Amino acid sequence: MGAFEELMAWARQTRALAQVAGRLAWDQETMMPRGAAEQRAEEAGAMEAVLHARRSDPRVGAWLEAAEAADPGPEARAQLRLIRHEHDRVRRVPGDLAAELARLTSRAQGIWAAARAEDDFAAFAPVLEEVVARKREEGAALADGGDAYDALLDGFEPGMTAAELDRIFGEMRPRLKRLRERALGHGDAAPLRGAFDTQAQLELARELAGRFGYDFARGRIDLAVHPFSAGAGDDVRITTRVSAEDPFNCLYSTIHETGHAAYEQGIAPAYRMTPVGQGVSMGVHESQSRLYENQLGRSRGFCHWLYGRMRAVFGDLGVADEEAFYATVNRLHRGYIRTEADEVQYNLHVMLRYDLERQLIAGDLEVADLEAAWNAWFAEDFGYPVDRAANGVLQDVHWSVGLFGYFPTYALGNVYAGCLHAAMRAELGELDAQLAAGDPSAATGWLRRHVQQHGGLYPPRELVTRACGGAPGAGPLLDYLDEKFGALYPG
Amino acid sequence: MGAFEELMAWARQTRALAQVAGRLAWDQETMMPRGAAEQRAEEAGAMEAVLHARRSDPRVGAWLEAAEAADPGPEARAQLRLIRHEHDRVRRVPGDLAAELARLTSRAQGIWAAARAEDDFAAFAPVLEEVVARKREEGAALADGGDAYDALLDGFEPGMTAAELDRIFGEMRPRLKRLRERALGHGDAAPLRGAFDTQAQLELARELAGRFGYDFARGRIDLAVHPFSAGAGDDVRITTRVSAEDPFNCLYSTIHETGHAAYEQGIAPAYRMTPVGQGVSMGVHESQSRLYENQLGRSRGFCHWLYGRMRAVFGDLGVADEEAFYATVNRLHRGYIRTEADEVQYNLHVMLRYDLERQLIAGDLEVADLEAAWNAWFAEDFGYPVDRAANGVLQDVHWSVGLFGYFPTYALGNVYAGCLHAAMRAELGELDAQLAAGDPSAATGWLRRHVQQHGGLYPPRELVTRACGGAPGAGPLLDYLDEKFGALYPG
Repeated sequence: MGAFEELMAWARQTRALAQVAGRLAWDQETMMPRGAAEQRAEEAGAMEAVLHARRSDPRVGAWLEAAEAADPGPEARAQLRLIRHEHDRVRRVPGDLAAELARLTSRAQGIWAAARAEDDFAAFAPVLEEVVARKREEGAALADGGDAYDALLDGFEPGMTAAELDRIFGEMRPRLKRLRERALGHGDAAPLRGAFDTQAQLELARELAGRFGYDFARGRIDLAVHPFSAGAGDDVRITTRVSAEDPFNCLYSTIHETGHAAYEQGIAPAYRMTPVGQGVSMGVHESQSRLYENQLGRSRGFCHWLYGRMRAVFGDLGVADEEAFYATVNRLHRGYIRTEADEVQYNLHVMLRYDLERQLIAGDLEVADLEAAWNAWFAEDFGYPVDRAANGVLQDVHWSVGLFGYFPTYALGNVYAGCLHAAMRAELGELDAQLAAGDPSAATGWLRRHVQQHGGLYPPRELVTRACGGAPGAGPLLDYLDEKFGALYPG
Repeated sequence: MGAFEELMAWARQTRALAQVAGRLAWDQETMMPRGAAEQRAEEAGAMEAVLHARRSDPRVGAWLEAAEAADPGPEARAQLRLIRHEHDRVRRVPGDLAAELARLTSRAQGIWAAARAEDDFAAFAPVLEEVVARKREEGAALADGGDAYDALLDGFEPGMTAAELDRIFGEMRPRLKRLRERALGHGDAAPLRGAFDTQAQLELARELAGRFGYDFARGRIDLAVHPFSAGAGDDVRITTRVSAEDPFNCLYSTIHETGHAAYEQGIAPAYRMTPVGQGVSMGVHESQSRLYENQLGRSRGFCHWLYGRMRAVFGDLGVADEEAFYATVNRLHRGYIRTEADEVQYNLHVMLRYDLERQLIAGDLEVADLEAAWNAWFAEDFGYPVDRAANGVLQDVHWSVGLFGYFPTYALGNVYAGCLHAAMRAELGELDAQLAAGDPSAATGWLRRHVQQHGGLYPPRELVTRACGGAPGAGPLLDYLDEKFGALYPG
């Protein structure tokens, strides 16, 4: 075997093991008996050690150099680009630091959960300080002389920089704040009220997943505390949750996760179990899930159709008509929690975290001052004070598990979704009519052709540029939001 | 760290990875989407490669020698005994042969399933010939000059030999045949007739599992095509199946698997994730499952109680009274299939396979003559001819996947169960009354104290000898069967 073939055999087996580890995590959230947590931590740790040893295999560097020198074709170049990206990242972080971060974040997650339950940031601050200190070290090691935050960001969105994010977010913030203020000037819109049979919710969620192209022969839907999508290729599972009071939680989480899953299921079969055979970045992944959920699932047409479908399933909804239902689905209201936010305010939540975590990594902000900084920022962007830590600085798990550089990909996903949606609409003349018939298949087919099938073949920015015919920017998203919410909340 | 500590850290991580591989196999039978089979084979193969590499780690031999020389305490000696046993077996089989066997048996299993569906032994014979040839090689490599079949047997029942089995089975066969003939002289007893709600069966099965001591906080019950138990320590899962016509299938499979699971769940927590922390042999494992299922679950007292419970759940069963129900549960009838056989005939099925596989490995029988040999033997032991290959030589998966030396542990489990049951009865005066109240907890508690908690601390024969106060033999089982079935089928 040549170096490229050796490398691909190694990569394929590594991917297979990563899938096994991913399935173990899925099992933990869906199937694991409650008494098995301690033993499971040991099992998951053993898998992590196996994967780390494989990724640190010294032969990889030599294979890479030889294979890169041979200048193979475009697909092989993409495989090498992705292997090189991961290899360089693994190589730059000292093994001791990686192991210490794994131990530390495992401990920090438990402390965070307890602190959140008690609304007590001070109980979390000491371990978060340790995490931040280690992440600064890790960022510096990865950056190799460059910017530490950019280096962390690059792990989730290869090629993206904080400078570029600043440019994009700088354009977004004022327009989003303006839109938010105008909408909330109308007062909080009323939510759906009532109790909705949870089994019927789940059945409708399964139907919606199918309509959005989820392939049940290569996946399954289970219940979990937090909805997520896991797996790749022929085994991509999603989870959802159900609340009798709020059927939109179950239905729209399911559509969101279907977007993630459809991306993985939609990658060309030839790439399966190779580095190219998975979603290329967190931002592009989120672009799919958010486009499914919002631009398609919360569109006027689809809401009109869903109104009829939900009345057929649940009976009278206490909502006057299709237009009122569309307004209810897209209602803006005051709130503290990112994951419950609407399309407009969601991005403001993300930017707040991005700014704070960037300062933390740069050393411009210390953990001791984090809660105050959060609260000040929130009051500035949202116009009212945080009422308690669980609704503020303690609401997200991310920092406790060491995810710095991850938050901005949520907003970037919306930016990409805006670009893709505009390009798709320009091409698909019948889209509104199809959505009004409950049929998003033309839209999901467009995404499959232009985005999903390519997996990691192109870097994120190139992928979006190819799909949209121009470089990504916030303009299309902001225009879409202005049009949609401007009509719902006339000024 | 000293050599022993190094070795135990290695063993612990290996156990953790083996658990992950086991959970992957559980997932395949219970949860996996149907389109994921091909990808799953690659994932399972990658895990197998990781485990094989670990088990072949050249450091293990050196650690073992150093640790053995240090003469540690009794628990450490047991750990070393088990690690040494596996290490020597792995070391003796050339890596190429192990890999070839893995590939071959994976292929052979599919060919066997297709051949069984077509009742066509000739379609299976060529690949089985290859399997037998490789197993002869493996047996010879393992035997290191000794007997090849003994060496294969030792993989499932350490310390057991074919000579000892011949002695035990030689005592059993004539008495079992006599009992069988007498019982069938009464004609085939009638089965339960009717249709039994499958959801109610599953609920009752869960109740029975609980009564037999299954800890649901450290396990779960799901449906699968073939019932099995999987896992160790704090995560031991069982599966069952359900048929509307035959509720005993679901209920007694569940009690059987509960026996396996209770063994694993009942091992002392201090041994968890170590070599001592798992069932010590296939025979001892089967002794627990069979004792739970038969000596307890099919006892007169428990059947009397179950009659009332099943009438409460399903209504009239079409069975006159408790005694008639007891006879129905324990009915003997003509049949071809091992897994459907009663307590008497089951062992005759096992001995047939044992004799044939021993001849195959010794080279005294060739695959070309296997079907004829099976059919002749069956007619001799059971008194009527095999009607088709799927009911004869093709009925079991074992040989296709390379399990030679495994079958006799099924009958050995019954022999051990006979000894344990006799010892238990001598000690527990109230056993019959407790079972008649649907409460097997005194019996399962006795097994936990005398067998289960020890895990692999003692070799199988020593474990049973300690529990029973004497060396294991077929006498107690045969006396129990004579008494039970002699009363049901008076001569």
